[in-house]
Amino acid sequence: MNTLIIVAHPDLENSVVNKRWVEELRKFPDQYTVHDLHEAYPDGRIDADREQRLVEAHGNLALQFPIYWFNCPPLLKKWLDDVLTYGWAYGSNGGDKLLNRKTALAVSAGIKESDYRPEGRYRYTLGQILAPFESTFRYCRADYRSHFAYYGTEGEPGENVPGQENEPASNLLDRSARQYLHFIDSL
Amino acid sequence: MNTLIIVAHPDLENSVVNKRWVEELRKFPDQYTVHDLHEAYPDGRIDADREQRLVEAHGNLALQFPIYWFNCPPLLKKWLDDVLTYGWAYGSNGGDKLLNRKTALAVSAGIKESDYRPEGRYRYTLGQILAPFESTFRYCRADYRSHFAYYGTEGEPGENVPGQENEPASNLLDRSARQYLHFIDSL
Repeated sequence: MNTLIIVAHPDLENSVVNKRWVEELRKFPDQYTVHDLHEAYPDGRIDADREQRLVEAHGNLALQFPIYWFNCPPLLKKWLDDVLTYGWAYGSNGGDKLLNRKTALAVSAGIKESDYRPEGRYRYTLGQILAPFESTFRYCRADYRSHFAYYGTEGEPGENVPGQENEPASNLLDRSARQYLHFIDSL
Repeated sequence: MNTLIIVAHPDLENSVVNKRWVEELRKFPDQYTVHDLHEAYPDGRIDADREQRLVEAHGNLALQFPIYWFNCPPLLKKWLDDVLTYGWAYGSNGGDKLLNRKTALAVSAGIKESDYRPEGRYRYTLGQILAPFESTFRYCRADYRSHFAYYGTEGEPGENVPGQENEPASNLLDRSARQYLHFIDSL
Protein backbone atom coordinates (compact mmCIF):
# COMPACT_ATOMS: atom_id res chain seq x y z
CA MET A 1 0.00 0.00 0.00
CA ASN A 2 1.08 3.56 -0.67
CA THR A 3 2.61 5.59 2.09
CA LEU A 4 0.53 8.63 2.98
CA ILE A 5 2.52 11.84 3.48
CA ILE A 6 0.57 14.57 5.25
CA VAL A 7 2.34 17.81 4.28
CA ALA A 8 1.68 20.91 6.38
CA HIS A 9 3.42 24.07 5.19
CA PRO A 10 1.68 27.47 5.28
CA ASP A 11 3.49 28.56 2.12
CA LEU A 12 4.70 25.45 0.34
CA GLU A 13 5.16 27.17 -3.02
CA ASN A 14 7.73 29.54 -1.56
CA SER A 15 9.37 27.01 0.70
CA VAL A 16 12.73 25.50 -0.11
CA VAL A 17 13.21 22.18 1.61
CA ASN A 18 9.59 21.08 1.86
CA LYS A 19 8.83 21.99 -1.76
CA ARG A 20 11.83 20.04 -2.98
CA TRP A 21 10.83 17.03 -0.91
CA VAL A 22 7.31 17.11 -2.31
CA GLU A 23 8.66 17.29 -5.86
CA GLU A 24 10.70 14.18 -5.20
CA LEU A 25 7.79 12.29 -3.65
CA ARG A 26 5.53 13.16 -6.58
CA LYS A 27 7.90 11.45 -9.01
CA PHE A 28 6.63 8.14 -7.60
CA PRO A 29 2.84 8.38 -7.32
CA ASP A 30 2.54 4.62 -7.15
CA GLN A 31 4.48 4.62 -3.89
CA TYR A 32 3.59 7.84 -2.12
CA THR A 33 0.41 9.87 -1.76
CA VAL A 34 1.21 13.51 -0.99
CA HIS A 35 -1.64 15.23 0.86
CA ASP A 36 -1.07 18.99 1.10
CA LEU A 37 -3.17 20.14 4.06
CA HIS A 38 -3.07 23.86 3.31
CA GLU A 39 -4.11 23.22 -0.29
CA ALA A 40 -6.92 20.90 0.80
CA TYR A 41 -8.22 23.20 3.54
CA PRO A 42 -7.41 26.84 2.75
CA ASP A 43 -10.06 27.92 5.25
CA GLY A 44 -8.57 25.70 7.95
CA ARG A 45 -11.73 23.61 8.33
CA ILE A 46 -10.64 20.00 8.23
CA ASP A 47 -12.94 17.24 7.00
CA ALA A 48 -12.09 14.70 9.68
CA ASP A 49 -14.10 11.91 8.09
CA ARG A 50 -12.31 12.36 4.76
CA GLU A 51 -8.96 12.39 6.53
CA GLN A 52 -9.71 9.23 8.45
CA ARG A 53 -10.75 7.43 5.25
CA LEU A 54 -7.52 8.62 3.63
CA VAL A 55 -5.38 7.19 6.41
CA GLU A 56 -7.32 3.92 6.33
CA ALA A 57 -6.74 3.62 2.57
CA HIS A 58 -2.98 3.76 3.06
CA GLY A 59 -0.26 1.85 4.84
CA ASN A 60 2.53 3.81 6.46
CA LEU A 61 1.90 7.39 7.56
CA ALA A 62 4.36 10.29 7.62
CA LEU A 63 3.82 13.86 8.77
CA GLN A 64 6.02 16.37 6.93
CA PHE A 65 6.38 19.96 8.13
CA PRO A 66 8.75 22.84 8.77
CA ILE A 67 9.53 23.44 12.42
CA TYR A 68 8.41 26.92 13.44
CA TRP A 69 8.93 27.82 17.06
CA PHE A 70 10.09 24.30 17.84
CA ASN A 71 6.68 22.92 16.89
CA CYS A 72 4.46 22.12 13.93
CA PRO A 73 2.33 24.60 11.94
CA PRO A 74 -1.10 25.23 13.51
CA LEU A 75 -3.02 23.41 10.78
CA LEU A 76 -1.18 20.17 11.48
CA LYS A 77 -1.98 20.46 15.18
CA LYS A 78 -5.62 20.97 14.15
CA TRP A 79 -5.39 17.86 12.01
CA LEU A 80 -4.22 15.85 15.02
CA ASP A 81 -7.00 17.27 17.23
CA ASP A 82 -9.75 16.78 14.63
CA VAL A 83 -8.73 13.46 13.09
CA LEU A 84 -7.31 11.41 15.97
CA THR A 85 -10.66 10.92 17.65
CA TYR A 86 -11.83 8.57 20.35
CA GLY A 87 -13.17 5.43 18.75
CA TRP A 88 -10.95 5.85 15.73
CA ALA A 89 -7.37 6.53 16.84
CA TYR A 90 -7.70 5.28 20.42
CA GLY A 91 -10.22 3.97 22.90
CA SER A 92 -12.75 1.25 22.54
CA ASN A 93 -15.29 0.84 19.73
CA GLY A 94 -12.80 0.77 16.88
CA GLY A 95 -10.08 3.05 18.18
CA ASP A 96 -7.39 1.00 16.54
CA LYS A 97 -6.85 2.68 13.20
CA LEU A 98 -3.25 3.61 13.99
CA LEU A 99 -2.51 0.39 15.87
CA ASN A 100 0.89 -0.92 14.74
CA ARG A 101 0.80 1.42 11.75
CA LYS A 102 4.32 2.55 10.89
CA THR A 103 4.51 6.28 11.42
CA ALA A 104 7.25 8.87 11.11
CA LEU A 105 8.02 12.56 10.88
CA ALA A 106 9.96 14.51 8.27
CA VAL A 107 10.92 18.03 9.31
CA SER A 108 12.96 20.96 8.12
CA ALA A 109 14.60 22.23 11.26
CA GLY A 110 16.09 25.55 10.24
CA ILE A 111 18.47 25.76 13.16
CA LYS A 112 21.80 24.01 12.72
CA GLU A 113 22.21 20.61 14.29
CA SER A 114 24.85 21.68 16.80
CA ASP A 115 22.36 23.98 18.49
CA TYR A 116 20.04 21.04 19.09
CA ARG A 117 22.14 19.51 21.85
CA PRO A 118 22.04 19.61 25.64
CA GLU A 119 25.07 21.89 25.56
CA GLY A 120 23.81 23.79 22.51
CA ARG A 121 21.96 27.03 22.19
CA TYR A 122 18.53 25.45 22.57
CA ARG A 123 19.41 22.71 25.07
CA TYR A 124 17.17 20.07 23.57
CA THR A 125 17.77 17.60 20.80
CA LEU A 126 15.37 17.55 17.89
CA GLY A 127 14.08 14.21 19.19
CA GLN A 128 13.22 15.89 22.48
CA ILE A 129 11.55 18.80 20.72
CA LEU A 130 9.44 16.31 18.77
CA ALA A 131 8.40 14.36 21.89
CA PRO A 132 4.76 15.55 21.68
CA PHE A 133 4.38 13.84 18.30
CA GLU A 134 6.14 10.67 19.42
CA SER A 135 3.87 10.60 22.50
CA THR A 136 0.77 11.09 20.36
CA PHE A 137 1.67 8.12 18.19
CA ARG A 138 2.52 6.08 21.27
CA TYR A 139 -0.84 6.97 22.80
CA CYS A 140 -2.50 5.59 19.67
CA ARG A 141 -0.28 2.47 19.81
CA ALA A 142 1.19 3.24 16.41
CA ASP A 143 4.64 1.97 15.51
CA TYR A 144 6.56 5.25 15.63
CA ARG A 145 9.76 5.01 13.58
CA SER A 146 11.60 8.23 14.35
CA HIS A 147 12.10 11.36 12.29
CA PHE A 148 14.02 12.53 9.23
CA ALA A 149 15.42 16.05 9.46
CA TYR A 150 16.97 18.71 7.32
CA TYR A 151 18.91 21.04 9.59
CA GLY A 152 19.79 24.63 8.83
CA THR A 153 23.22 25.46 7.52
CA GLU A 154 23.62 28.76 9.31
CA GLY A 155 23.74 29.66 12.97
CA GLU A 156 22.09 33.02 13.18
CA PRO A 157 18.76 33.32 14.96
CA GLY A 158 15.79 33.60 12.70
CA GLU A 159 15.90 30.49 10.58
CA ASN A 160 13.51 28.62 12.78
CA VAL A 161 10.50 30.81 12.20
CA PRO A 162 8.00 31.32 9.38
CA GLY A 163 9.45 32.40 6.06
CA GLN A 164 13.03 32.19 7.22
CA GLU A 165 14.18 29.01 5.55
CA ASN A 166 17.69 29.31 4.25
CA GLU A 167 18.50 28.64 0.64
CA PRO A 168 20.79 25.66 0.68
CA ALA A 169 23.07 24.57 -2.12
CA SER A 170 21.05 22.63 -4.67
CA ASN A 171 23.22 19.55 -4.36
CA LEU A 172 22.56 19.43 -0.60
CA LEU A 173 18.88 19.73 -1.29
CA ASP A 174 18.92 17.02 -3.95
CA ARG A 175 20.79 14.72 -1.63
CA SER A 176 18.34 15.33 1.21
CA ALA A 177 15.43 14.57 -1.12
CA ARG A 178 16.95 11.20 -2.03
CA GLN A 179 17.75 10.45 1.61
CA TYR A 180 14.20 11.39 2.56
CA LEU A 181 12.71 8.87 0.15
CA HIS A 182 15.15 6.27 1.40
CA PHE A 183 14.02 7.01 4.94
CA ILE A 184 10.36 6.63 3.97
CA ASP A 185 11.08 3.39 2.12
CA SER A 186 12.91 1.99 5.13
CA LEU A 187 10.18 2.50 7.69
CA MET B 1 1.92 46.34 35.62
CA ASN B 2 -0.79 43.77 35.12
CA THR B 3 0.13 40.26 34.14
CA LEU B 4 -1.24 39.28 30.73
CA ILE B 5 -2.77 35.82 30.57
CA ILE B 6 -3.26 34.54 27.03
CA VAL B 7 -5.96 31.87 27.31
CA ALA B 8 -6.36 29.39 24.46
CA HIS B 9 -9.18 26.89 24.86
CA PRO B 10 -11.37 25.84 21.91
CA ASP B 11 -14.40 25.50 24.21
CA LEU B 12 -13.72 27.48 27.35
CA GLU B 13 -17.37 27.67 28.40
CA ASN B 14 -17.60 23.90 28.63
CA SER B 15 -14.17 23.37 30.08
CA VAL B 16 -13.63 22.56 33.72
CA VAL B 17 -10.15 23.50 34.86
CA ASN B 18 -9.49 26.36 32.46
CA LYS B 19 -12.88 27.94 33.04
CA ARG B 20 -12.43 27.81 36.80
CA TRP B 21 -8.97 29.35 36.51
CA VAL B 22 -10.31 32.19 34.37
CA GLU B 23 -13.07 32.86 36.89
CA GLU B 24 -10.47 33.18 39.62
CA LEU B 25 -8.23 35.49 37.56
CA ARG B 26 -11.19 37.74 36.71
CA LYS B 27 -11.82 38.42 40.38
CA PHE B 28 -8.72 40.61 40.32
CA PRO B 29 -8.88 42.76 37.18
CA ASP B 30 -6.37 45.20 38.61
CA GLN B 31 -3.76 42.43 38.67
CA TYR B 32 -4.50 40.19 35.70
CA THR B 33 -5.69 40.79 32.16
CA VAL B 34 -7.36 37.69 30.75
CA HIS B 35 -7.20 37.57 26.95
CA ASP B 36 -9.37 34.79 25.56
CA LEU B 37 -7.95 34.04 22.10
CA HIS B 38 -10.90 32.02 20.81
CA GLU B 39 -13.31 34.74 21.88
CA ALA B 40 -11.16 37.45 20.29
CA TYR B 41 -10.60 35.59 17.04
CA PRO B 42 -13.47 33.20 16.33
CA ASP B 43 -12.39 33.06 12.68
CA GLY B 44 -8.80 32.23 13.65
CA ARG B 45 -7.38 35.35 12.03
CA ILE B 46 -5.09 36.92 14.59
CA ASP B 47 -4.41 40.67 14.62
CA ALA B 48 -0.68 40.48 15.27
CA ASP B 49 -0.26 44.22 15.73
CA ARG B 50 -3.00 44.32 18.36
CA GLU B 51 -1.46 41.35 20.14
CA GLN B 52 1.98 42.91 20.18
CA ARG B 53 0.62 46.16 21.62
CA LEU B 54 -1.21 44.14 24.27
CA VAL B 55 1.96 42.35 25.35
CA GLU B 56 3.88 45.64 25.40
CA ALA B 57 1.21 47.20 27.64
CA HIS B 58 1.71 44.49 30.25
CA GLY B 59 4.46 43.10 32.44
CA ASN B 60 4.63 39.37 32.96
CA LEU B 61 3.15 37.05 30.36
CA ALA B 62 1.50 33.67 30.87
CA LEU B 63 0.09 31.28 28.32
CA GLN B 64 -2.81 29.17 29.65
CA PHE B 65 -4.14 26.19 27.74
CA PRO B 66 -5.34 22.61 27.96
CA ILE B 67 -2.87 20.04 26.67
CA TYR B 68 -4.37 18.14 23.76
CA TRP B 69 -2.13 15.57 22.15
CA PHE B 70 0.79 16.65 24.30
CA ASN B 71 0.74 20.12 22.75
CA CYS B 72 -1.17 23.40 22.72
CA PRO B 73 -4.40 24.13 20.80
CA PRO B 74 -3.80 25.20 17.17
CA LEU B 75 -4.85 28.81 17.75
CA LEU B 76 -2.15 29.32 20.36
CA LYS B 77 0.45 27.95 17.97
CA LYS B 78 -0.85 30.39 15.38
CA TRP B 79 -0.52 33.18 17.96
CA LEU B 80 3.14 32.28 18.44
CA ASP B 81 3.77 32.15 14.69
CA ASP B 82 1.93 35.40 13.94
CA VAL B 83 2.92 37.51 16.94
CA LEU B 84 6.51 36.54 17.70
CA THR B 85 7.93 38.20 14.62
CA TYR B 86 11.45 39.15 13.61
CA GLY B 87 12.13 42.69 14.74
CA TRP B 88 9.67 42.42 17.59
CA ALA B 89 10.30 39.21 19.54
CA TYR B 90 13.84 38.53 18.31
CA GLY B 91 16.42 39.80 15.85
CA SER B 92 17.73 43.27 15.31
CA ASN B 93 15.66 46.43 14.79
CA GLY B 94 13.67 46.20 17.99
CA GLY B 95 13.38 42.46 18.48
CA ASP B 96 13.58 42.76 22.21
CA LYS B 97 9.97 42.91 23.34
CA LEU B 98 10.21 39.69 25.30
CA LEU B 99 13.76 40.35 26.54
CA ASN B 100 13.91 39.52 30.25
CA ARG B 101 10.11 39.51 30.42
CA LYS B 102 8.94 36.98 32.99
CA THR B 103 6.99 34.30 31.17
CA ALA B 104 5.27 31.10 32.23
CA LEU B 105 2.79 28.44 31.20
CA ALA B 106 -0.35 27.20 32.94
CA VAL B 107 -1.73 23.95 31.62
CA SER B 108 -4.39 21.39 32.35
CA ALA B 109 -2.69 18.12 31.65
CA GLY B 110 -5.49 15.59 31.71
CA ILE B 111 -3.26 12.61 32.19
CA LYS B 112 -2.27 11.78 35.75
CA GLU B 113 1.14 12.90 36.93
CA SER B 114 2.53 9.39 37.37
CA ASP B 115 2.21 8.76 33.64
CA TYR B 116 4.41 11.78 32.93
CA ARG B 117 7.62 10.10 34.03
CA PRO B 118 10.48 8.36 32.23
CA GLU B 119 9.13 5.05 33.54
CA GLY B 120 5.51 6.11 33.05
CA ARG B 121 3.07 5.42 30.28
CA TYR B 122 4.18 8.39 28.18
CA ARG B 123 7.90 8.36 29.04
CA TYR B 124 8.30 12.12 29.19
CA THR B 125 7.78 14.54 32.02
CA LEU B 126 5.44 17.45 31.47
CA GLY B 127 8.48 19.73 31.45
CA GLN B 128 9.90 17.72 28.57
CA ILE B 129 6.59 17.78 26.72
CA LEU B 130 6.55 21.58 27.09
CA ALA B 131 10.13 21.99 25.83
CA PRO B 132 9.00 23.68 22.57
CA PHE B 133 7.46 26.53 24.56
CA GLU B 134 10.44 26.86 26.88
CA SER B 135 12.73 26.91 23.81
CA THR B 136 10.59 29.57 22.14
CA PHE B 137 10.85 31.84 25.16
CA ARG B 138 14.56 31.14 25.41
CA TYR B 139 15.00 32.02 21.73
CA CYS B 140 13.36 35.38 22.48
CA ARG B 141 15.57 35.82 25.56
CA ALA B 142 12.56 35.99 27.84
CA ASP B 143 12.88 34.99 31.48
CA TYR B 144 11.00 31.70 31.39
CA ARG B 145 9.78 30.76 34.86
CA SER B 146 8.42 27.24 34.45
CA HIS B 147 4.87 25.94 34.30
CA PHE B 148 1.88 25.41 36.56
CA ALA B 149 -0.09 22.25 35.90
CA TYR B 150 -3.33 20.60 36.83
CA TYR B 151 -2.95 16.89 36.27
CA GLY B 152 -5.77 14.47 35.64
CA THR B 153 -7.10 12.43 38.48
CA GLU B 154 -7.84 9.29 36.53
CA GLY B 155 -5.60 6.96 34.63
CA GLU B 156 -7.69 5.86 31.71
CA PRO B 157 -6.66 6.94 28.23
CA GLY B 158 -8.77 9.67 26.76
CA GLU B 159 -8.40 12.55 29.16
CA ASN B 160 -5.66 14.16 27.20
CA VAL B 161 -7.65 14.97 24.13
CA PRO B 162 -10.27 17.55 23.20
CA GLY B 163 -13.43 17.48 25.25
CA GLN B 164 -12.21 14.81 27.60
CA GLU B 165 -11.43 16.82 30.72
CA ASN B 166 -12.46 15.02 33.85
CA GLU B 167 -14.75 16.62 36.36
CA PRO B 168 -12.65 16.95 39.48
CA ALA B 169 -13.96 17.48 42.99
CA SER B 170 -14.82 21.14 43.43
CA ASN B 171 -12.50 21.52 46.39
CA LEU B 172 -9.57 20.28 44.30
CA LEU B 173 -10.51 22.76 41.61
CA ASP B 174 -10.81 25.64 44.06
CA ARG B 175 -7.47 24.80 45.55
CA SER B 176 -5.80 24.65 42.14
CA ALA B 177 -7.28 28.06 41.28
CA ARG B 178 -5.77 29.61 44.40
CA GLN B 179 -2.44 27.87 43.75
CA TYR B 180 -2.50 29.10 40.17
CA LEU B 181 -2.85 32.73 41.25
CA HIS B 182 -0.10 32.22 43.78
CA PHE B 183 2.10 30.83 41.01
CA ILE B 184 1.37 33.83 38.79
CA ASP B 185 2.06 36.24 41.65
CA SER B 186 5.37 34.55 42.40
CA LEU B 187 6.86 34.77 38.93
